[in-house]
Amino acid sequence: MAQNYQPFQASMLALGQAPSVIRETFEYGNRRAAEIGRENVFDFSLGNPSVPAPDSVHDTMRRLMDETDSVLLHGYTSAVGAEPVRSAIAADINKRFSAGISAGNIYMTCGAAASLTVTLHAVLCPGDNCIAFAPFFPEYRVFVEAANADLTVVPADLDSFQLNLDAFEKLVNAQTKAVIINTPNNPTGVVFTEANLRKLCDILRAKEAEYGHPIYLIADEPYRELVYDADTVVPYLPNLYDDTFVCYSFSKSLSLPGERIGYIVVSPKMKDSKLVYAAVCGSGRALGFVCAPSMAQRVVADNLGRTGDLSVYRRNRDLLYKALTEYGYRCIYPDGAFYLWVQALEPDANAFCQKARDYELLIVPSDSFGCEGFVRIAYCVTTEMIERSLPAFKKLAEAYGK
Amino acid sequence: MAQNYQPFQASMLALGQAPSVIRETFEYGNRRAAEIGRENVFDFSLGNPSVPAPDSVHDTMRRLMDETDSVLLHGYTSAVGAEPVRSAIAADINKRFSAGISAGNIYMTCGAAASLTVTLHAVLCPGDNCIAFAPFFPEYRVFVEAANADLTVVPADLDSFQLNLDAFEKLVNAQTKAVIINTPNNPTGVVFTEANLRKLCDILRAKEAEYGHPIYLIADEPYRELVYDADTVVPYLPNLYDDTFVCYSFSKSLSLPGERIGYIVVSPKMKDSKLVYAAVCGSGRALGFVCAPSMAQRVVADNLGRTGDLSVYRRNRDLLYKALTEYGYRCIYPDGAFYLWVQALEPDANAFCQKARDYELLIVPSDSFGCEGFVRIAYCVTTEMIERSLPAFKKLAEAYGK
Repeated sequence: MAQNYQPFQASMLALGQAPSVIRETFEYGNRRAAEIGRENVFDFSLGNPSVPAPDSVHDTMRRLMDETDSVLLHGYTSAVGAEPVRSAIAADINKRFSAGISAGNIYMTCGAAASLTVTLHAVLCPGDNCIAFAPFFPEYRVFVEAANADLTVVPADLDSFQLNLDAFEKLVNAQTKAVIINTPNNPTGVVFTEANLRKLCDILRAKEAEYGHPIYLIADEPYRELVYDADTVVPYLPNLYDDTFVCYSFSKSLSLPGERIGYIVVSPKMKDSKLVYAAVCGSGRALGFVCAPSMAQRVVADNLGRTGDLSVYRRNRDLLYKALTEYGYRCIYPDGAFYLWVQALEPDANAFCQKARDYELLIVPSDSFGCEGFVRIAYCVTTEMIERSLPAFKKLAEAYGK
Repeated sequence: MAQNYQPFQASMLALGQAPSVIRETFEYGNRRAAEIGRENVFDFSLGNPSVPAPDSVHDTMRRLMDETDSVLLHGYTSAVGAEPVRSAIAADINKRFSAGISAGNIYMTCGAAASLTVTLHAVLCPGDNCIAFAPFFPEYRVFVEAANADLTVVPADLDSFQLNLDAFEKLVNAQTKAVIINTPNNPTGVVFTEANLRKLCDILRAKEAEYGHPIYLIADEPYRELVYDADTVVPYLPNLYDDTFVCYSFSKSLSLPGERIGYIVVSPKMKDSKLVYAAVCGSGRALGFVCAPSMAQRVVADNLGRTGDLSVYRRNRDLLYKALTEYGYRCIYPDGAFYLWVQALEPDANAFCQKARDYELLIVPSDSFGCEGFVRIAYCVTTEMIERSLPAFKKLAEAYGK
């Protein structure tokens, strides 16, 4: 055998075999449920929407099947997505954010992960650097490295969990090609304030001028619609910064995570926007992501502005935040998404999560999100399970002397 | 600006801007239809199924919506696909081909393109070589190069359009990691004979022994079910060669090309099959292709063994092959798929296709498939359009003195 011959991609094998603490926790939960009954296990590990899709989604599907020719309904759309679908999405964006988006700025994708990989492969070149802010969705590292670039992580602001911009400013350099932000945030549930984002954009503009090239802002927005207080605003990034991509998914808003449907916006104000859009098209082609699922494209276009019953998540958030705070936990107030971010009651979040299992509480340590000493509690579960879990959270706090 | 700085991936821009003769032909047809009426334009450019999905597909969708909890139906499945879906597919494969496949050998994907890109990224390393046989689906080159490997093209056997194995044997070398074959073939419609395939496998085994490492056979099989004669057999490659991947899609068999649903089989007989399967999982994760569309997974599992009404394609094939042969064209007999491969009536296939436009015939020159002097006629159209087009084909032949 030739020296250095690899029978397959070692990096892909490593990824395929990498343990996932979230998956491991979920599977532990299933085993434990088999032992002591599902009702006695409090599984807060997965970020899976727990409210059904709005009825209008199935209404649209039935109507499409009744009224649309099967060959058209299930046929290939344009590689970038059906024009009427992209026009409807652009109109909805403009109605809400006056962002001047047109169908030609939108590339339909097979969900949030595809939105990110297509965007990253379009812009990142070997040797480029991409920045993410801790704590962050761990697949960002996987996606950036798959595009042959490097990920730099900005340490968290452990007080506010807003973007840590002092640290960020020092980490940007001439190799920085892109910055990923995620608001409302997974795993913290925090929504970055407009002031925080405006300062980020000011820094980016100054660095673009200093280095003489674009630094793209990639706004990963699957949780955009999941905010719970009337005064919480999620600024539309293309209105704050020209060189912005928006990577959107309908997974959480319409409770359709398995249907893999989302889109990329290439801001029309971006430098060389049309060329960058063409690079996105090329990237989609190279990765095998042309023509997002055709019926799902039509379904989301027909359900813009609708969501599942998000009041369930708000009720869960309020219940859990209030109770855990009372029990002595330090909780970061979650403006959105469906995660509560809680400081572990000992320095090692992994040890804390193991201890929580003694009380049948399945929660995820913060380490895999690039930040130590916290846990993520996914409250996209039934309110009733939360109610039943509260005594366990109380006992866990008491075990730490709270 | 830093020297050599690229504002985005030049290779992706080039791909995104690359002209496509198929798309250009299709768009010309739309313009021409606006000028002279759709009924006067004979568009044979696109490989889009023209028969509807079987009724059972919509029956399944309605039943799933009526009977399955929305959160489950549209929720994430396992990254590799729902276990019951993979088990059903494995059982169907084993019933038909006795191939010893289990759910753990199957990775559900978002269509044929994804099946190929995930497989190629799993096995190809920089510097590796992948072989395809001309004429071939042009995206093979895109997908292989996106995996940082090189594509070698085996010249066509211009008599039979079976695999040109004498040329192949000389082109295999120590860098050869994978070989892609596509039967029934796009663009020729030819089904490779079992004898031809057995000889390919013998060569591969000999070369594996010579170089001391696996050479993977990647069977790209979206057209497997589209064969029209009782005596046409499409051999199941995992039964002929151990180191085989099958990349399957339901696009053509169920007339669901837009729904993006297919799968990869990693043969259980493959060397290190479990490790390679893990690399496929890692590759899917890196490319952002985990969890194929969830409702579509369940739909195909419920419709295994069914197809659209393929008799339409057979009727079209017989009609077109007989007429064009009578008019003096040299047609390669198509055992399957929905393409007729015809020798151009002048050496330059592009010039011939331009000439055909004088008769409102829109056909695709062979050059983009890696082979000169032929044209592809996609007969996945209405039989009635074929009937109306025949006088035009006759006049075109006559213009060349036939």
